[in-house]
Amino acid sequence: MKTYLDCIPCFLKQALFAARAALDDEEKIKEVLDRVGMLVSELPLDSSPPETGREVYRVVREVTGVDDPFATLKAESIEKALALYPSMKQIVGDSDDPLETAVRLAVAGNLIDFGANPDFNLERDVKEALRKEPAINHYEAFKNKLEGAREILYLGDNAGETVFDRVLIEVMAKPVTYAVRERPVINDATVEDAVRSGLDELAEVVSSGCDAPGVILNRCSEPFLDHYKRADLIISKGQGNYETLSGEQRPIFYLLKTKCPVIAADLGVKDGDTVIKYALAND
Amino acid sequence: MKTYLDCIPCFLKQALFAARAALDDEEKIKEVLDRVGMLVSELPLDSSPPETGREVYRVVREVTGVDDPFATLKAESIEKALALYPSMKQIVGDSDDPLETAVRLAVAGNLIDFGANPDFNLERDVKEALRKEPAINHYEAFKNKLEGAREILYLGDNAGETVFDRVLIEVMAKPVTYAVRERPVINDATVEDAVRSGLDELAEVVSSGCDAPGVILNRCSEPFLDHYKRADLIISKGQGNYETLSGEQRPIFYLLKTKCPVIAADLGVKDGDTVIKYALAND
Repeated sequence: MKTYLDCIPCFLKQALFAARAALDDEEKIKEVLDRVGMLVSELPLDSSPPETGREVYRVVREVTGVDDPFATLKAESIEKALALYPSMKQIVGDSDDPLETAVRLAVAGNLIDFGANPDFNLERDVKEALRKEPAINHYEAFKNKLEGAREILYLGDNAGETVFDRVLIEVMAKPVTYAVRERPVINDATVEDAVRSGLDELAEVVSSGCDAPGVILNRCSEPFLDHYKRADLIISKGQGNYETLSGEQRPIFYLLKTKCPVIAADLGVKDGDTVIKYALAND
Repeated sequence: MKTYLDCIPCFLKQALFAARAALDDEEKIKEVLDRVGMLVSELPLDSSPPETGREVYRVVREVTGVDDPFATLKAESIEKALALYPSMKQIVGDSDDPLETAVRLAVAGNLIDFGANPDFNLERDVKEALRKEPAINHYEAFKNKLEGAREILYLGDNAGETVFDRVLIEVMAKPVTYAVRERPVINDATVEDAVRSGLDELAEVVSSGCDAPGVILNRCSEPFLDHYKRADLIISKGQGNYETLSGEQRPIFYLLKTKCPVIAADLGVKDGDTVIKYALAND
């Protein structure tokens, strides 16, 4: 997905939020905004928003000197999600179609986001997401594709959401490679967060090699790209991964909750809708 | 009121909205955002937001070549408000306290705003504003002050809102000078808009001499400043005028509806609340 003009004010808003998470120093935070403001003119609209997100968070790190402003929030998200884990297992176990419920839960977990959606309420929003019918629902295609799948690549998004992903991976009962960001960016999961969520016990946890809040293929590592090329089923979580991969003709299922009107419009749904979208749905 | 860090992303958002109102050319609109982005580093936080708003709309004019992007929207707002004028007169005439109702209507009219609040619904929102108790309500002080007032200065805000102001001025039945912006900025009223709203028939319509979306005293004309100094009652409509005058120790009544969390916090009210605030309330 290209960068829309509406993304530009939002980059400033995200920079402000991240800088405030890093420190409480108005002058430094203003300096972050000054530098992000100057980035605008260098920003090509044909690159995807996470490409700019990468630059924005680099500025936040450089100016504030704080490498991971969301470290505490990420740890808290994982703890909260782990506390919900037993009840998630129960909900899945009690349901008529455990796989479908687990997919819905994995989508619901995507509401955890300190970039686009800082004001979420985990338990309330999860319940709502389970109840609500996805605006795009290619679950049947997912179920069919999963049956024959041999190598699954799972592209993680936010820390905490990782625990929801774990529930789905347990139900899928297939070999899974779980890929995360190369380094902290917003509240996206890193290898450390994935391990803390217990994912290393049931999947091979790898870094994408890319430090953007999305999977930018030409910035990914060779080992990751091998996984990407070999996989016969790819699960892509969240807006950032959708933004960077949406043009790809690969067997990708996008599982996400929309948190901004621009991405909702790009997908043809309403802001706040949930989506289970198969990239090759019209093939 | 100083500029808060949260205002900065909002300047970009307003620039985008105004540039889109001016033309349909993605490259030109991007150029507006590039230039506003570069403004950020030159922006002192101790100046009021309309000081920056003035620069932002200057950039919009220069890059797009369109002097008044909101000309059509302003004319429509005035027409819509004029269509409501007979029912406003009726509501005021039928009420127990016509002055209070007219003040409430004048506050309600402030919801017309293509800068901070482009998605308003005039009739619905006016009804709600009439029903809702102002979060700060110095109406009694206003009524008392008005009784002895000899020279009233009325600082207009948006085109269309001007018709609501007309209803209040008619009820006040006192000599009023009605001041507007020196030139088009956002959808703020100019002399032309005030005349189109019928204000010249019952008030002396003057320009403040200032082209910002607020009254920046050191940018105002001498004749306006004479009015400002002489007035024994000043009615200041809207956020922009509040932002530029909030430190002033003058007999000012701020009549406005808050349309952003920053100004709401500065006033100690909730976003969306209405306010009738006397600047000298604690004197």
